[in-house]
Amino acid sequence: MSAPDTSIAAAVAERLHRSRAAATVLATTTGRQRTDALIGIAAALRSSASLIIDANRRDLAAGRETGLATGLLDRLLLDDARVEALAVAVEDIARLADPVGQSVRGQALPNGVRVDEIRVPFGVVGAIYEARPNVTVDIAALALKSGNAIVLRGGSAAAESNRAILAVLRDAVAAAGLPADAVQSVDDFGRQGGTELMRARGLVDVLVPRGSAHLIETVVTESLVPVIETGSGVVHIVLDASAREDWAVDIVNNAKVQRPSVCNAVETVLVHRDAAERLLPPVLDRLAESGVIIHGDETVQRLGRDVVPATDDDWATEYLSLDLAVRVVDDLDEAIAHIRRYSTGHTESIITSDQANAERFLAEVDSAVVMVNASTRFTDGGEFGFGAEVGISTQKLHARGPMGLAELTSTKWVVRGSGQSRG
Amino acid sequence: MSAPDTSIAAAVAERLHRSRAAATVLATTTGRQRTDALIGIAAALRSSASLIIDANRRDLAAGRETGLATGLLDRLLLDDARVEALAVAVEDIARLADPVGQSVRGQALPNGVRVDEIRVPFGVVGAIYEARPNVTVDIAALALKSGNAIVLRGGSAAAESNRAILAVLRDAVAAAGLPADAVQSVDDFGRQGGTELMRARGLVDVLVPRGSAHLIETVVTESLVPVIETGSGVVHIVLDASAREDWAVDIVNNAKVQRPSVCNAVETVLVHRDAAERLLPPVLDRLAESGVIIHGDETVQRLGRDVVPATDDDWATEYLSLDLAVRVVDDLDEAIAHIRRYSTGHTESIITSDQANAERFLAEVDSAVVMVNASTRFTDGGEFGFGAEVGISTQKLHARGPMGLAELTSTKWVVRGSGQSRG
Repeated sequence: MSAPDTSIAAAVAERLHRSRAAATVLATTTGRQRTDALIGIAAALRSSASLIIDANRRDLAAGRETGLATGLLDRLLLDDARVEALAVAVEDIARLADPVGQSVRGQALPNGVRVDEIRVPFGVVGAIYEARPNVTVDIAALALKSGNAIVLRGGSAAAESNRAILAVLRDAVAAAGLPADAVQSVDDFGRQGGTELMRARGLVDVLVPRGSAHLIETVVTESLVPVIETGSGVVHIVLDASAREDWAVDIVNNAKVQRPSVCNAVETVLVHRDAAERLLPPVLDRLAESGVIIHGDETVQRLGRDVVPATDDDWATEYLSLDLAVRVVDDLDEAIAHIRRYSTGHTESIITSDQANAERFLAEVDSAVVMVNASTRFTDGGEFGFGAEVGISTQKLHARGPMGLAELTSTKWVVRGSGQSRG
Repeated sequence: MSAPDTSIAAAVAERLHRSRAAATVLATTTGRQRTDALIGIAAALRSSASLIIDANRRDLAAGRETGLATGLLDRLLLDDARVEALAVAVEDIARLADPVGQSVRGQALPNGVRVDEIRVPFGVVGAIYEARPNVTVDIAALALKSGNAIVLRGGSAAAESNRAILAVLRDAVAAAGLPADAVQSVDDFGRQGGTELMRARGLVDVLVPRGSAHLIETVVTESLVPVIETGSGVVHIVLDASAREDWAVDIVNNAKVQRPSVCNAVETVLVHRDAAERLLPPVLDRLAESGVIIHGDETVQRLGRDVVPATDDDWATEYLSLDLAVRVVDDLDEAIAHIRRYSTGHTESIITSDQANAERFLAEVDSAVVMVNASTRFTDGGEFGFGAEVGISTQKLHARGPMGLAELTSTKWVVRGSGQSRG
């Protein structure tokens, strides 16, 4: 690695100071002003669609030249339908309730002093993510709605798309009477832009990395700015001895098949030995119908067809595909121990008719979301009624589980007295 | 710096794995069990007082030999009265409401799935602090009450006292039927023990540094484990043009004099130029009666007696003594700009009779606690009715302002279904 360029460091710092100034203005805006800005952004995305798509074509051409994988090219692609979807998503965020100013708790002290904790924007939010231009729009809209200035650092393979989108966002924000610097990017500083962003403690209030486990790990390790970690999901379903067969079949199939590429899809099923002969044949049959490839231990290989022998690596793998690891365990203790060892702390569900086992599972499994007799696919901001999907936090500080707009705010204590001193 | 000793790293990791195992047990204890453990700790502190005081004498003797400052020796000192005070403090914590299991929010989804967010312990909490053996007892009691295992790293000047206290705590916890490893220390590994603690992401859930700004800065910079930052307080009071004289005099005096050594004491008073002639003479007279040394700008020097000329350093200083910086500002804009530049984001108060200025101050000043017409000394967990004083958070993530037991917990989503899958 070459030594950091001090002139870049100074230029990033100067830019972040402008973000802070913009955040100060944003902190006193009304919810109406911020909603109007988002409506303006949606309109600007539509009217600038061809400009954005042209820029995106340059990224795609460069990506093909450098041999970017097909899946990554697809994530990078913007066409008319996708730009329209982005505009609709911004309008959806615009319509959400304003988290800023909401009262968290409050009371009058015995001496008459009134004490209230209310939600306020963080100030400056940084986002570090991969070559997905839709994230540029999404995270900017979420930040602005919650009263924060946003500083973007996207993947370099989307540089042209992001530059075009940034210009659209800044113009629309300014047209709405808010400071254009409420939306900034450090993409033009390349890799060091991201590094400086991670070091900007005091200028940036919180960093939200979005993307692969590797990207998140890098940010968590290198950042001096506090991070909200949205983690990967090695998600488990336990089929207890008393599990109903219909629930087991439906929930495992739904949790694996409905959308295999997302973090709340199940990756490992653990089956109680006493129920293996009863449950595994129908569960595996249904999964086979859905085209799922089973990676199983010896018992699973015996009870299913075309089962791939599982290795230790399978237990730690987030497939994000139509693959599923299946293991037979001796009892609930072994199931919980397996989860403790391999889970990423996202979501785990038990299918059981035994009330005591259900309560034990809920109490002892230390994950963001623990479930009984429900599909792990319910771990989702939209399903939980938050409206927006900021991400699923797998950390324990500040936010855990599905994050709504409120999780992009801090709080402030407001104290109103009439001359009181402390006795 | 010498290279880290890998055998120490392994030994610390082994110890932290035992903390995690203890945390798993603690997570399923009842509030009654944890309360009883604290009552047992209080009794054990009393019955072991002479043993603890003997150990403390060895620390004091070593401290005098190495020339420890008088103030530090006083903070280190334990005598019968102070051990009794520690026991009483533990009993006070024992009596607080149990935060674990409290419902934060919850709802039934349209499909009948019940979704509840409830408070759960973090798991393993690390504490890094200075040579104050009372912190050892205090943070351990707060952690246990909230269902967390605690790993201690205290100042080496208190090593003997902390070792004696640790043994008392562990024995009392074990006698209450909880795992002794719920309370551990890495003090015996010296400086590297603290370093390994800061690197133990995944084993330790959160670190709470307590002590000087320098110690907190070190932990914040070096730690890979998420940190709850309890910061220093360069606290401001603004005397607006319309401030009532009696409130200005009383509140400034109370905020400076009632307990100058704590973080919520005022350090800088900013006076609107239009009120300087009216307010400064009575305010400064009252402070002089209280023995306060004023560090002022030219106008303050003219209006007060024995005023020390203020330098730029004074505006950034947390005196923690009977010193106060006083500056005349042209208007509320200049006051807010001064606060934005020099505040540590702890507490600021405005004394004013102007409603618009009051609301502007509350909205624009970005500190954990913002006040109108009240003493900054009210920023306190006890005053806010939290019972316990975990610290005053000056960060924006997870907790801001006075922290109660609830701030030593995370949450978990508990989802109860009856076979539902996602459509």
